[in-house]
Amino acid sequence: MKNVIIGVMGSGNEATGKDIKNAFILGKLIAENSYILLTGGRNAGVMDAASKGAKEKNGLTIGILPSSNKKELSKYVDIPIITGMGSARNNINVLSSNVLIAVGIGPGTASEIALALKAKKDVILLNPDKETVSFFKNMGKNFIHTAKNPEESLHIAKKILGD
Amino acid sequence: MKNVIIGVMGSGNEATGKDIKNAFILGKLIAENSYILLTGGRNAGVMDAASKGAKEKNGLTIGILPSSNKKELSKYVDIPIITGMGSARNNINVLSSNVLIAVGIGPGTASEIALALKAKKDVILLNPDKETVSFFKNMGKNFIHTAKNPEESLHIAKKILGD
Amino acid sequence: MKNVIIGVMGSGNEATGKDIKNAFILGKLIAENSYILLTGGRNAGVMDAASKGAKEKNGLTIGILPSSNKKELSKYVDIPIITGMGSARNNINVLSSNVLIAVGIGPGTASEIALALKAKKDVILLNPDKETVSFFKNMGKNFIHTAKNPEESLHIAKKILGD
Amino acid sequence: MKNVIIGVMGSGNEATGKDIKNAFILGKLIAENSYILLTGGRNAGVMDAASKGAKEKNGLTIGILPSSNKKELSKYVDIPIITGMGSARNNINVLSSNVLIAVGIGPGTASEIALALKAKKDVILLNPDKETVSFFKNMGKNFIHTAKNPEESLHIAKKILGD
Repeated sequence: MKNVIIGVMGSGNEATGKDIKNAFILGKLIAENSYILLTGGRNAGVMDAASKGAKEKNGLTIGILPSSNKKELSKYVDIPIITGMGSARNNINVLSSNVLIAVGIGPGTASEIALALKAKKDVILLNPDKETVSFFKNMGKNFIHTAKNPEESLHIAKKILGD
Repeated sequence: MKNVIIGVMGSGNEATGKDIKNAFILGKLIAENSYILLTGGRNAGVMDAASKGAKEKNGLTIGILPSSNKKELSKYVDIPIITGMGSARNNINVLSSNVLIAVGIGPGTASEIALALKAKKDVILLNPDKETVSFFKNMGKNFIHTAKNPEESLHIAKKILGD
Repeated sequence: MKNVIIGVMGSGNEATGKDIKNAFILGKLIAENSYILLTGGRNAGVMDAASKGAKEKNGLTIGILPSSNKKELSKYVDIPIITGMGSARNNINVLSSNVLIAVGIGPGTASEIALALKAKKDVILLNPDKETVSFFKNMGKNFIHTAKNPEESLHIAKKILGD
Repeated sequence: MKNVIIGVMGSGNEATGKDIKNAFILGKLIAENSYILLTGGRNAGVMDAASKGAKEKNGLTIGILPSSNKKELSKYVDIPIITGMGSARNNINVLSSNVLIAVGIGPGTASEIALALKAKKDVILLNPDKETVSFFKNMGKNFIHTAKNPEESLHIAKKILGD
């Protein structure tokens, strides 16, 4: 384990099938490469799928839970951080990750990408739509990267991390 | 005073001259219409200008300060709420406003628009660029409104508030 | 209005009849002396009673609500700050008050007194029990004051504020 | 590893030599018993010593950092959670720990014990003074436990955890 944290951000209940599949593969890749996975911790969508993937490869998974209700926690999270502070916890996701990968887009994820730019953190957008790329590149083009698939997103993450 | 809070979100040091002018006019209009103004509280950019405008018309101004350093506080804020929690306070800006108006765009403002959509709050984008409109309309078109100038943005806010 | 905020901290449902009576009188005194009242915002116990007292004398009342559920808000709060961050909001209560008065004692209030000492803020304990005084005086005796009744607590607050 | 988190709370720069020694031993015991250690993450006092002890026995250490400045991070923390929210993060320490052990007393630690009582979490006071015990037992006697030394505090923690 390298004590380097990759945050995977994405929707819960609104995640698409494609997002969930990508998140699962990405979780596996993160674990195989000995990184620590950080997600929003819920038992839904991208968070759950990425954590499940990482556990399949014996990775270490952190979940920053918005509520204080452990029933919402993904069973694939090793280390639940219980914030009880709702979406204000999104900033903790961002600050605690060495690099972030966004899988799909929704309001929560968009807030995390924006907070990452605010904090001058690199974000890799996995298979984003055109509007998402234009919008965020306008605001911080040096920190916004795009990848076509999970493998490429991990490849870019490694370059950013100097690994 | 109606005890209705209008949040005006916008950049600090990165605000453009146009944003600052719009924010100042908007602050005046909010006060003239007896609404309470809420901003991010800092003595810079949109936050400072909107608060200054509201005070010129004897409005009441709230500032939700990110740091715990009162030196960063706009002198036009009547009620400083000191959070000491950095950008995590953006979610408080959103939850505490009955409706939000975004003046210009930057990472902090983008995070607030996204958090507003997450919380199902209406946001009026004042004179936005095309990319910003496309991006956020894709995510929550019923909650995203656009206005060409401060007057129109207040007009839309009043309709949303049923005033 | 002096734009000086006095925070009144105390229990919600566990407040005693004595605490509620004291909080109501204190709220009136704060408003009569043109200070702004800040409480935890809930429609229960000390928070509700202090806000009610202040409104009876046409004061201005701020409530820093822990949840994001406005049903929990006291109807005597003019300016609700909605945090949605549970007890983590206690630190905002402390940082935003120029001086604090604790009415009664319970876990939430105890955390606020402790956070006030951490932030080097003065706290007046209204009619405290012996154990509470000993405990907090051990930790920060210059910042802990005691008062026998609401009148004395306001008197001490004014001295601290240099008013 | 059992995925059970024991939070060790205590002062930073104000910690006594005795507190630091106790924290170091406690960190070792927590790791030897395969628990995860959670602290406030700073490179000072009880937080640093407990983390150092745990790493000496190859434990896993989490640090919930108040600032967003990694220079303040203990080098014995494996998983830094960067909150940037000051003392408001104390509530995360509490909610994320299955059981808490307080080593020494100071304002920050006192706020965490109080927040633990608020959240109905068990707290073990390691070698506390009389005033601390009286004060907190008055508020929540079923959740307050006392121990004479690190060994006894871990013993009590195991009983509480049903281990």
